[in-house]
This record gives sequence, structure tokens and C-alpha cells, in this order.
Amino acid sequence: MRLATLRDGTRDGRLVVVSPDGLACASAPVPTMQQALENWGKVEPALSGITTFPDPLDPAGIMAPLPRAWQWLDGSAFQSHGDLMDAVLGITKPKTDVPLMYQGTSDKFYGPTDDVKFPDEALGIDFEGEFGVIMDAVPMGTGAVDAMRHIRLLVQINDWSLRTPAGPEMKTGFGWVQAKPPCGMAPFAITPDELGDQWCDGRVCLNLNVDWNGKRFGAANGEPMGHGFHELVAHAARTRDLVAGTIIGSGTVSNANFREIGSSCIAEQRGIEVIDLGEPRTEFMKFGDTVRMEAVDTGGRAPFGVLEQKVVRA
Amino acid sequence: MRLATLRDGTRDGRLVVVSPDGLACASAPVPTMQQALENWGKVEPALSGITTFPDPLDPAGIMAPLPRAWQWLDGSAFQSHGDLMDAVLGITKPKTDVPLMYQGTSDKFYGPTDDVKFPDEALGIDFEGEFGVIMDAVPMGTGAVDAMRHIRLLVQINDWSLRTPAGPEMKTGFGWVQAKPPCGMAPFAITPDELGDQWCDGRVCLNLNVDWNGKRFGAANGEPMGHGFHELVAHAARTRDLVAGTIIGSGTVSNANFREIGSSCIAEQRGIEVIDLGEPRTEFMKFGDTVRMEAVDTGGRAPFGVLEQKVVRA
Repeated sequence: MRLATLRDGTRDGRLVVVSPDGLACASAPVPTMQQALENWGKVEPALSGITTFPDPLDPAGIMAPLPRAWQWLDGSAFQSHGDLMDAVLGITKPKTDVPLMYQGTSDKFYGPTDDVKFPDEALGIDFEGEFGVIMDAVPMGTGAVDAMRHIRLLVQINDWSLRTPAGPEMKTGFGWVQAKPPCGMAPFAITPDELGDQWCDGRVCLNLNVDWNGKRFGAANGEPMGHGFHELVAHAARTRDLVAGTIIGSGTVSNANFREIGSSCIAEQRGIEVIDLGEPRTEFMKFGDTVRMEAVDTGGRAPFGVLEQKVVRA
Repeated sequence: MRLATLRDGTRDGRLVVVSPDGLACASAPVPTMQQALENWGKVEPALSGITTFPDPLDPAGIMAPLPRAWQWLDGSAFQSHGDLMDAVLGITKPKTDVPLMYQGTSDKFYGPTDDVKFPDEALGIDFEGEFGVIMDAVPMGTGAVDAMRHIRLLVQINDWSLRTPAGPEMKTGFGWVQAKPPCGMAPFAITPDELGDQWCDGRVCLNLNVDWNGKRFGAANGEPMGHGFHELVAHAARTRDLVAGTIIGSGTVSNANFREIGSSCIAEQRGIEVIDLGEPRTEFMKFGDTVRMEAVDTGGRAPFGVLEQKVVRA
């Protein structure tokens, strides 16, 4: 099952079920995605029972599947990305088996075709292609095995990042505020069964194709997460309840053979340049630049649809 | 004007205006605090025009003034606290004039008399007495002078903290997740005019009396913030819009003469012990412990009311 949220003038939009071909939709029996997640046990059968899709689906009218959330926690579960970022930022992190995670702004997620506004190119504007999961309510202390059952939907995320404040903020130990403005989301939130065996051990095992200004920049696969999403959920729920609709991200999708398949963010490419050439060569995004992200399965389908966003001056 | 939110079985509760003596209340013309903040220009005159308070106010029925918020950003604006915490955690931060700030969990704020649940005493359970501000919508790029006008309400916060994961999380550079479960709030959110000249240069210049298990632990004053709240707001709004109802905290209230007046958190006391005695002596909270926080003005009044919370096993 694939779900989307349509623009209707409200902050939360209107929930629809999307047809298998992605071209049509049907109204959901609850108004919003948040309400569906808060009552998932009752709502899910009604949603999955919908088989006729009377309304055409206009890509320009699609918001983020969850246009705002009560909680957004982002991991950094791809080791090859973490190592490179540490190198380029000059960070020395202690070795640990504990997942890396920060809390980000959740009051707004940009829709898949929304322009994204920043005040200044000098902030080092960067995209980060990620996968994410959305849960129903997860009680404090839930372990990884049980956490898997709370993962109700999968999403594809562009974690917009500003690299100039990122290093200094990280060095304070307080994490990121200015460096992490709102994220964008691809059109469709999907139930895990949509991926078949490409949802494996809590990982979205799809290639994430990332194009910057129309040119292929990366095509990393989501499989090599050091911790599965269920483990990230358990980590987050160690000392707090997770309210229904909490979103947890994978961190930038990255593979160890990044020199061949490219990267899901510019900072990683710059990290490679620092290591190989002694300095970064690739500049960050400029106003007017676009980024396109599309995860594809082995059949060539794009379960999450396409995210394509333009950077504009605030 | 003082506002409170009453328990009514919903997550957002029911907004009331509180009488000057704090013993009675009147229903507000909008159901919730969030709705009031989203329409402050229209709602504030209606709220402040209320002069009769027909309903008795039951302290046990009071939730946090804003029981959940779309965004909670906490500063660390008291230098004497920051220096001590760095000493006890073994952190070396770069010197900077930029405010320190992290994003915390905002989907729930405990009410002033709610029991607070944690899974394990070994997590190092600690309170942090703070002040905070709540804004209407603040556009990205708003400077400090303009930010002052967006500060609509002041609150008193207990920023519950778990010290065992705090140091390791800080050393990752990602900030705190497990170390920062939901905060508590004192009963009343107040408009800045309630404090007269004790709201000064964006600071809440009241003594914050903190009692642990009935014994005075600290009585620091909110005046010596290194950055005023308006500067913290401008910092947060540098690269993002702040949605109406965003809450920003001061960080633990702390004064340089902490050896005389005490501390607003246990970790600070332990930091003093590390410096003076070579090791921390004071243990963190145990299940069944209580903390009471009451900010008092020069007239002996408690504008925010009293927060008194008990720690319980989850």
C-alpha cells in the first residue's frame, strides 16, 4: 500500500491511497496521515481494502506524506558516510556500537516538488538522500525485535543540510540547529510489504538514484546500514515514549565503493576529494540548483515516487 | 496575564485565564494554547479582557501550559553552568560568541505535578531548573531586536536530564537523544509584562528556588544569561522559520556564586565537588525522590506557580 498527502490549504493536508500505477488515488477514511498513524490498527484494514482509485493524482499537489511530525530523529547508520564526514569536518568520535542519532526540526517537511528556501549560499547548501521509517506509538523500553512491528511506513527523505555551521555546531557537542533546516520527502509513504524481500533486516535495500542539476551524482544502496531501522527505533525509545508519527531516518545512504557509484550528498564527495586530492573541489549548491532523488527496486519501479526540489533564496 | 491548560482527556487540554491570586480561572475563547499562539494578535486582546474568574483552579488538574509543542530548542546561556558541566563531562568546547543550543523532544511536556517515569536509576536522573519563552510565528532571518516582539509568553521549565548517556552522546557531536527525555513545566505561562522590570533585556530576573526532597538545593537568579532570550530566538531563526508555539529554553539557571546560593541541577553540584574535592560526592536522584521549583519575584510572589514532580520507575 502506498499513501500520499494532498495539498488542501491546511498544514496537515488530506490523506489518500495511491493506485498501483501511481497515477490515481482514493480518499482515505481518515482525514490525515497523523490520525491514521494514531489509530493504525483500525485504519490500516480500511486503507488496504481500497481497490478503486477514482481521482487523478496531480504530482504538483502532493505534500510530504507526513507534512509535519511531533518528532524527527535522524541516524547516521552508514559507516562509509560517517568516516568520510568525520574526515572532512575534522571530528574524532569515540568508537562505539551505539547508533548515532540527533533530533531535528519536525514542524515542517517540504513536499517533493516544493522549492526550498535558504538565506545565503555561503551556508554551504547540501542535500542528503536518506530512507526513513514512521511508527505508530512505541512505548519506552521497546527492544529491537518488538520495534520492528511498530514500523508501519517507509519514506524517502532529503535531509537538507548547511555545511558551514555544521562543523562548529558539532564541535559544541550540542548537535545541529542552524545546520539542519527542514527536510523534504518523496511523494509516497509505503507499507514495508511493498518492497518484498528488498525490505530486509530493517533495511530499505534499494538503489537511491541522486541527480544534481540533471546529472547523476550517486546511486548508493540502502542495504549496508550498520544498524537496522528497528535498532534505531529501540535506541530512540530507550528513555522516552515515541508518539505515533515519529519519523526516524537512516542518515545519508552511502556505500563503501563510493568512488564508483557516487554519493547521496555533496559533503561526502568533498570528503573523497580531501582524501584523494588534499582539498575539496566540488562546491555546494547555488540558488536555482535542483536535486532529484528516486529510489528504484530491482524491477525498475520507484516505490516512493520522485523527489525533485529547487533551491531558492529566502 | 497568566494562562494555564487544564486536563480534559485530550493531548492539548483546555486553555484558561488565571485569576491574579492564582486560585480561580476562566475559560479562554479558543480551546487550546497552540491555537491562541497561532492567532495571538486576535486572541490576546480577548484573553486579557477577561476580568471575572468563575471556576476554582485545581492544581492537580493543571497540565503544562503547552502540553506538546512543534519545536523545543534549549540553550545553555549561563556561563557558570557551562564551564562546570564541561569540567565534569571532560568536554573541551571551542570558544565562541555563538549561543549554544540543541533540539529536544517536544511531543510531550509533563504537567507541574505529574510523576516522571524513567527506566533505570543508573541513567543518572537529574533535574534542570530553567526559564523559557514561547513565540508566535518567527520568520527565518528575524534579528534579535525584532525577535523580542515575538516573545509572547514566559514559562518555567524542568529540563529532565539523564547524565549517564549525556557525556557519550555529547562526544559524538550529534547532541542528546537518550539524555534528554521530556521536560516538565510549571503551571502558568505569563505575558512578559507580569514581571515588570524583572523582565529585563530578554532575561527573567527572578530567583529560581529549587528544593530536592524538601531541602533547598539552589536559588540562582535568571539575570546573568550570556545571551538574552531574544538573541536565542534570532539564533534559532537564522536558517528556519519558527512555527507559532516554538519554545526556547535558557539552559540551567546558574550564578557564578554557586558555592553560596546552590545550583539548579545536581550535575552542577557534582562539578563543584569535582573541582573542590577531586570527585563527585552527591548522587543523582532515586525513584521516589521529588523536586520542587518555584521562581519568586522581589515581592515574594511566584508568577509561574509551583512545579513539584516525583521520579518513578517506568
